Amino acid sequence: MKLKAKRSDLIEVAKGNRPADLFIKNGTVINVYSGEFLKQNVAVYKDCIAYVGGSDRAIGEHTTVIDATGKYLSPGFIEAHSHPWIVYNPVSMTSKILPLGTTTTVNDNLFFHLHMGANGFKRLVKDLEQLPGNFFWLARLVSQAEYQGENELFNDNEVKELLALDAVLGSAEITRWPLLYNGDPYLLEIIDYIKKLGKVVDGHTAGCSYDKLNAVVASGVSACHEAITLKEAFDRLRLGMWTTLRNSSLRPDLQELIPLITEGNVSTSRIIMTTDGPNPAFIEKEGFVDGLVRQAVELGVPVMNAIQMVTINAATYLKQDDYIGGLAPGRKADILLLPDLVSFRPEMVIANGEIIAEDGKLTINMPEIDWNQYVNREPFGFSKSVLENADLYRYPHQGGNVPAIYFKSNVITERKDIFLTSVNGYADLSGDNGLLQAALFDRNGKWITRGILERFAVNLDGMASTYNTTSELLVIGKNPEAMAKAAARVHDLGGGIVIVDGSEIILEIPLQLAGMMTTDPSFSTAVMYYDQLLSIVQERGFPFHDILYTLLFLTCDFLPGLRLVPKGLYDVKQNEILYRNESLTLNSVK
Amino acid sequence: MKLKAKRSDLIEVAKGNRPADLFIKNGTVINVYSGEFLKQNVAVYKDCIAYVGGSDRAIGEHTTVIDATGKYLSPGFIEAHSHPWIVYNPVSMTSKILPLGTTTTVNDNLFFHLHMGANGFKRLVKDLEQLPGNFFWLARLVSQAEYQGENELFNDNEVKELLALDAVLGSAEITRWPLLYNGDPYLLEIIDYIKKLGKVVDGHTAGCSYDKLNAVVASGVSACHEAITLKEAFDRLRLGMWTTLRNSSLRPDLQELIPLITEGNVSTSRIIMTTDGPNPAFIEKEGFVDGLVRQAVELGVPVMNAIQMVTINAATYLKQDDYIGGLAPGRKADILLLPDLVSFRPEMVIANGEIIAEDGKLTINMPEIDWNQYVNREPFGFSKSVLENADLYRYPHQGGNVPAIYFKSNVITERKDIFLTSVNGYADLSGDNGLLQAALFDRNGKWITRGILERFAVNLDGMASTYNTTSELLVIGKNPEAMAKAAARVHDLGGGIVIVDGSEIILEIPLQLAGMMTTDPSFSTAVMYYDQLLSIVQERGFPFHDILYTLLFLTCDFLPGLRLVPKGLYDVKQNEILYRNESLTLNSVK
Repeated sequence: MKLKAKRSDLIEVAKGNRPADLFIKNGTVINVYSGEFLKQNVAVYKDCIAYVGGSDRAIGEHTTVIDATGKYLSPGFIEAHSHPWIVYNPVSMTSKILPLGTTTTVNDNLFFHLHMGANGFKRLVKDLEQLPGNFFWLARLVSQAEYQGENELFNDNEVKELLALDAVLGSAEITRWPLLYNGDPYLLEIIDYIKKLGKVVDGHTAGCSYDKLNAVVASGVSACHEAITLKEAFDRLRLGMWTTLRNSSLRPDLQELIPLITEGNVSTSRIIMTTDGPNPAFIEKEGFVDGLVRQAVELGVPVMNAIQMVTINAATYLKQDDYIGGLAPGRKADILLLPDLVSFRPEMVIANGEIIAEDGKLTINMPEIDWNQYVNREPFGFSKSVLENADLYRYPHQGGNVPAIYFKSNVITERKDIFLTSVNGYADLSGDNGLLQAALFDRNGKWITRGILERFAVNLDGMASTYNTTSELLVIGKNPEAMAKAAARVHDLGGGIVIVDGSEIILEIPLQLAGMMTTDPSFSTAVMYYDQLLSIVQERGFPFHDILYTLLFLTCDFLPGLRLVPKGLYDVKQNEILYRNESLTLNSVK
Repeated sequence: MKLKAKRSDLIEVAKGNRPADLFIKNGTVINVYSGEFLKQNVAVYKDCIAYVGGSDRAIGEHTTVIDATGKYLSPGFIEAHSHPWIVYNPVSMTSKILPLGTTTTVNDNLFFHLHMGANGFKRLVKDLEQLPGNFFWLARLVSQAEYQGENELFNDNEVKELLALDAVLGSAEITRWPLLYNGDPYLLEIIDYIKKLGKVVDGHTAGCSYDKLNAVVASGVSACHEAITLKEAFDRLRLGMWTTLRNSSLRPDLQELIPLITEGNVSTSRIIMTTDGPNPAFIEKEGFVDGLVRQAVELGVPVMNAIQMVTINAATYLKQDDYIGGLAPGRKADILLLPDLVSFRPEMVIANGEIIAEDGKLTINMPEIDWNQYVNREPFGFSKSVLENADLYRYPHQGGNVPAIYFKSNVITERKDIFLTSVNGYADLSGDNGLLQAALFDRNGKWITRGILERFAVNLDGMASTYNTTSELLVIGKNPEAMAKAAARVHDLGGGIVIVDGSEIILEIPLQLAGMMTTDPSFSTAVMYYDQLLSIVQERGFPFHDILYTLLFLTCDFLPGLRLVPKGLYDVKQNEILYRNESLTLNSVK
C-alpha cells in the first residue's frame, strides 16, 4: 500500500516538531492490538496516523482539533469480501457505506473482468484509486460458471498481471471449489504464485464436508465465508482457514454462527465477518459492516472481539495490518468517532486522514466515473429484432417427462420430473400448473439453454434480466410474447431487468454496467430499483425474500441442484448436463 | 516457502486415494487456530500435512503409523528472533534445538554478512537449506555499531537482493533505533521496499519511551523484543507492534513481562516469545523455545496461549502462517509429540515430515558444512608480530582524569571519571585499583580504540577476543605482556577468545567462523567453551553471570553508557565520541 504521507514527516509529527493536520483529543481509543479501551489523543498527518498517546504537542496553529470527549475512536471497519455489483456500483456502494464506517472494502472483480477484460479492468482499478477510503480488489481466477472461451478471458498471464497490482490483495473466491478438490493444475499453479507474491487466496467452500475440506485446504485456499451451520464454522476454523462469518441479505447466518464464539469459546483472532454482497434494501435497513458488529454484540460477542473481527483480524488476514485495521502510527488514518458501543453508527468518519462523513452523511463529493470507457464488449452481439420472435421462448417438447427446476428456497433448487403434453412441438404450459419457461441466451448469440421452472413466480408473464451470474440474457415467463417484449426492451437498455405484464412494460431497471449495475451514482436509485423489483415479483407469486440472489444463482454451477448454465441444463450434484445448450448463429443475423 | 510435496498429491492423500508416508493416530491435537484440544489423526505426505481429522483412510501398506494415544500433538515451535552465533553455529545450534521441539528458526545474519559479504552469505543461505526443519533469515540493513566502510558492505542493492531471497523473511533488528527516530533516509526507503515484498521489518527499541516509540513505529518497524518492564511491553503492544517477550540468558525477563497477559488480560494474538540468542549453557540448562513455553505456563499463562505465542502468532507475524505454525493440510509437517502439558519436552519431533528426534536425541545426521568457503575476509590484515608489542596495550596518559567504563551490570555501563597518574607516558594501573586496560583493534589494522574498564574482572592479566559485536579484536587486561600474548594467540587461531595468566595461556576458544563461532558441529563443545570461559573470568573477579554478552555489547553503540566502538570511546547517551580512535597503518606491516 502506498502512503501519501512521508514516513519522515510522520516521525516529525510524532515528535511534535511538525503540526498535525488533524488532532482528535480526549477520546477513548478502541485498541484492537491490546484489546483495551484507552483514553488517548490521536494525531493525523496527511493520510496517516502519526501519534497515539497522551501528548498534545502535535497541535499547531492550523491543526483542526476535534474534541472526542465521551466518544470512542474505532479503526475504520473493513469488508474483506465485498461484491460491489448488486445493482449498485462501486461508487454508489462506497458513497453509502463510508458514512456507516466501512472505510476499506476488498472487492470481487468478477463482472468487471468479464465485461472489461484484463486491460479495461486495470484502467478501472487505477481510476477507482480516487475513491475515498481504501478500495481494494480480489481477482477471479475462473468465472463463476464454466463456459466456452473462459480460458481465453481468464488466461494465466493476464490473471497474473492483475494479481501483481498493488490494489489487488489476492485472488477472489473460487466458487467452483470442486476444481480445487479435483486438483485443477491451472489453479494449483497460480495459487502458489499468489502466495509467493505474499497475497491471499480467498475461498468459497459452500457445503463442503469436513473430510473434503481437508483436500481443498491442501490446495492452498486460506479463507472461507460459506459456513452456514455452527459445525461448518468449527470445521473451517479448525482446519486453519480464516473463518469469515456471514450475515448477508441472502443468508443472515450470524445468529447460527455466533455460538462458535459465545459458546465454543474459540480463539477469535482468525475470525472475520462479512456482508457478502447484500442487496441494496438490506444495506439501507441493516447497515453494512456496522450492522455485523451491532448484531454480533447483540448476540453476546464482547464489543472488543466484535470490532477486532472487522478491523485487525481482517487486516491481518489480508496481510495489510501494517497499514489498516488499528489506530497506531504509520497506519492509514481511518478513524470512526462512535457515540456509544451499542449502535456502532459513527458520528464522524475519517478516511485516509480526511473527514468524509458526519452524522451518517457524506461530506465530500465522490469522483464521477464514465463506466463505458472500460467496457470492451457490445451489450449484445445481435440485433434486437431477433429477440422479438416469441417462438424463441417456447420450450420445445414432444410430450413426456421433463426435468424441471424446482425452487426449494431462494437459491437452492432440485430436479423435479414433470409430465408435460406437447402442442405444435412445444410444451403445453397453458394450464394453471405454476410452471414457467426459462431461457439463458448467450449475448454473443452463439447458444441458448432452456429449462422449466417451478415455484418461481407463477403469475409472471415475462421477465428478462442480464442480472445473473453469467451476465448473459435470462428470460423467464409463462407468456412467450411478454417474454419477447421484455427481452427486446433489455436489448434497448443495453442490459438490465425488465418485467412485462400482458403487453405492458411494468418495470425497467437499466443495468448498463456489465448487465449487473446501474451507472447511477446515487445508492438510493439501487434501493428503489430493488424495492420495485421485489414487490412486483412477490405480487406475481415469488415466495422468497431476495429475488436478486435467485436470479444470480439460477445460472451458476456450484449450488444444488438443477441449473441453467451456458453449457446446458445442469444437474450439479450428478455433475451431469441433462440437455446440452442449442447452438445459435444469431450474430450473423445482426 | 517451497513445499516438496505437490499440492495435487496432498489432495489425493486427503481423499484417501494415495497413502500417507506417516500417519499419527489417536493423539490430541493442540489446535492453535481454534484454541481447542481435539482428538484427531494427522496424515503426512512428504514434507507436508495432508489431512487432520477422524478418518484413517490415508493409511496404506507402507505408511509408518505412530500411535499417539495419550500424547499431545503440537505444531513445531518457532523462534522468530534467533542469533545463531553465540559460540555455537547454525548447524550446532540446530542440532541442539530440534530435539527440543523448535523446528523453525528465523536467524539474524549479522556476522555472516560482515565476514562473507552479500555473495558469500547468499551461498551459505542456499547450503543451509539442507538443514532439517526450517532455517530462515532476517537480513541486517545496517551493522550493530557504526563504522567506516559500513555503507559499502551494507549497500542498498546488495541488501535488497538479500531481502528478496525466499529464505529471508524480512529485515533484522535495527539495534541503532535512533537512526529510525531521526528519519534516516536509507532506512525509511528500504523499509517500504521490504513491506512491498510482503516481508517483515523486525525492530529493537531498547529503552525507547512511549512517546519516542510513536516515531519509531511511524518509520514502519513492526516488532520489538526489547521490553524489559511491564510498561514497556504494554507500550509496544498498544502501538501496534508485534510484542515479543524475551527470556534469554542475558535477560530472563519473562517473569516481569508475563503479567501483561495474566493480569493485563490483553489480546494475545500479537504476542510472541523469544530466547534472543541465549548462551550455550543456558540452552543446555533451560532449553530453547520449549523453555519459554514451560516458564510462561508456570507463570500462569494458559497452555493454549503459551503455545499459540510460539507457533501461530509467530507464523502470522512472519506472514508464513500458510506454511507453518499450525497443524492443518498444506502446512509443513512440523509436529511434536508431547507426553504432557507441563514439561513441553517432545518425545518425538517431526520436521518437514521426517522423524528427526526421539526422546531428546537427534535421530538423523546433520549436514557437514565447510564454513571457510563462504568467508571473504582474512582473519587479520596484518602479521601476528604486531600484536606482540606490549606497549600497544598500555593506555597513553599524561596524568589527570580519565573517563572510565564502569560496569553497572552485565551489559550496562556508565562513565566514571577517575584520576590516574602517568608513568612514561602511560596511565599507571599498577596499584590495586581494579582497573583494566582495554583496546579494540580493527582486524584490518586501520584503527585502535582504547579505554579503561572498572568492575570487569579485576584479576584478569590478559584476554583477547574477537567475540564482540564488531567482531574486531578486543583486548583487555591489567598486564600488557599477558594481553599481547593473548592477542597474538587469537591471531594464530584466526579468531577466538584467549586468556593468559602471567605468561601462561589458560584458555583457548577457537572461533574461526566470523570470530564469533566455533566450527565444531557439536553443541556440547560450545557449552564446554562457555563454561570454561565463565568460570575463569569469575575466578578472576568478573561479578556477572553472562560474560559473552558483556563482551558482545562492550563494543556496541546502542546500550548505555560508555562504549569502545570503532569510531572511538563513545558516550551513548550524549551521542559524543570522547576520544576518537587512533589511526594505525598496521596492514603495511604485514
